[in-house]
Amino acid sequence: MTGSHALPPVARRVSEVRARVAEWRKTGLSVALVPTMGALHDGHLTLVRTALKAADRAVVSIFVNPTQFGPNEDFAAYPRTEDADLAKLASVGASLLFAPTVAEMYPQGFSTAITVAGVSEGLCGATRPGHFSGVATVVTKLLQQVQPDVAAFGEKDYQQLQVLRRLVRDLDMPVAILGVPTVREADGLALSSRNAYLSAEERAVAPALQRALADAAAAMTGGMPVAAALDAARAAILGAGFAAIDYLELRAADGLAPLTEVDRPARILVAARLGRTRLIDNLAV
Amino acid sequence: MTGSHALPPVARRVSEVRARVAEWRKTGLSVALVPTMGALHDGHLTLVRTALKAADRAVVSIFVNPTQFGPNEDFAAYPRTEDADLAKLASVGASLLFAPTVAEMYPQGFSTAITVAGVSEGLCGATRPGHFSGVATVVTKLLQQVQPDVAAFGEKDYQQLQVLRRLVRDLDMPVAILGVPTVREADGLALSSRNAYLSAEERAVAPALQRALADAAAAMTGGMPVAAALDAARAAILGAGFAAIDYLELRAADGLAPLTEVDRPARILVAARLGRTRLIDNLAV
Repeated sequence: MTGSHALPPVARRVSEVRARVAEWRKTGLSVALVPTMGALHDGHLTLVRTALKAADRAVVSIFVNPTQFGPNEDFAAYPRTEDADLAKLASVGASLLFAPTVAEMYPQGFSTAITVAGVSEGLCGATRPGHFSGVATVVTKLLQQVQPDVAAFGEKDYQQLQVLRRLVRDLDMPVAILGVPTVREADGLALSSRNAYLSAEERAVAPALQRALADAAAAMTGGMPVAAALDAARAAILGAGFAAIDYLELRAADGLAPLTEVDRPARILVAARLGRTRLIDNLAV
Repeated sequence: MTGSHALPPVARRVSEVRARVAEWRKTGLSVALVPTMGALHDGHLTLVRTALKAADRAVVSIFVNPTQFGPNEDFAAYPRTEDADLAKLASVGASLLFAPTVAEMYPQGFSTAITVAGVSEGLCGATRPGHFSGVATVVTKLLQQVQPDVAAFGEKDYQQLQVLRRLVRDLDMPVAILGVPTVREADGLALSSRNAYLSAEERAVAPALQRALADAAAAMTGGMPVAAALDAARAAILGAGFAAIDYLELRAADGLAPLTEVDRPARILVAARLGRTRLIDNLAV
């Protein structure tokens, strides 16, 4: 027992999740899904809390999905902390942990891929080829496996959220997508499982990413031309100690069309390298 | 009124289909989907009859899907005969016709595509690039829109059936796929909406396709080497008056791996050109 709730049951197989969901459905309960890759932090727990406001039961999936990692990315190193995750899920009242194996998700002969053009291109889609196809495919599987009424995703992965909104609309999947605002440390750093990779020195530098976005958003709102505000943000990020910027761009908040001026709801999105760690963040303008 | 049933209602919008299906679900009825491109013949009606043995209600969709036609194919010319189709559907007791517009299926901004590797490659996948991606995407949409318990497809489009079985398994869609044997004319010609393109002379030649498959299957079963039996079938098809053979191959019945001998359940598959019409057929070995 942890916190005020018992540990949620753990399902490893699709058939187990479906049996549990079918029981809930029989008594008229609604169901939310919160897909994660584990290494849970308060951002994930906020997703679960939000999901439980929108539905009676929340299934949390933990699956470090190999098909969304590139060959030189951190699939093998990605933190796996299931026992700690389970205790955290209990503390927020999650109803079920679905933690399938790779073989359960991708059995021998698996051959299907989903691509979402447009919104998947550029930004992380440019630096991580195939990433969003991996995400779209695994999320489609999870949605089909669990058949939830709602699914919650963080705005931290803003492009992913836009890709998934497009995917669900295009394929007519009967599920509502909830976008949940990013949870931040006191110093502004967006919570991320990858923050665990940062050294103490890097951790001290990391909040500069969010500060640069906030300054650029304020400058744009104050009338500074977009290109100048983005240039200042780039200089600030590199000046603070980041090694490189993968991208720093202003995009339409809905659909991610590139913007050269703030003529509609917009979002600044950034990916930058701090030592060997790649951090992403984004902010509304 | 036609035959013993009233004309089924016609839904043009996804929301209408869903409302109708939701009513059925409320009273515990099971639902089948029969996706078609219209120009219905007895092969389609057999699909509906089979669907109504497997489920309480059968939704038939008619949608000539532009994304599964190549730029030089017969999308514009494809027969559209909705009034006659509706009367035929009434005669077999179909519960609902879903006939959406292209704009309802692919609204502005539509960006998603599904590909199924392996089983989509070769055969019609080689001569019709993009065809099976179009099929996989539209069938996924129809399955998500209708959420049926079962969906029925003809063995006439054998590779399509294999692609869809793989798709549904890979994406964990909760639907059973029913494969329904090909319906043939008295002279053996497989029923096809494209038979309407044939001149009287071509119609007289067309059954040679099925005869060549049957002779090859009998020869292989009798011990003739696969390559020799296929060569004889090619000669027979071209000798009968077909202009060209797109492919004529022996494949594994499950998964369509190429075979050089009949060491497991197998299927001979053919596509050939008769005048300007492309006919396909297949037969179990």
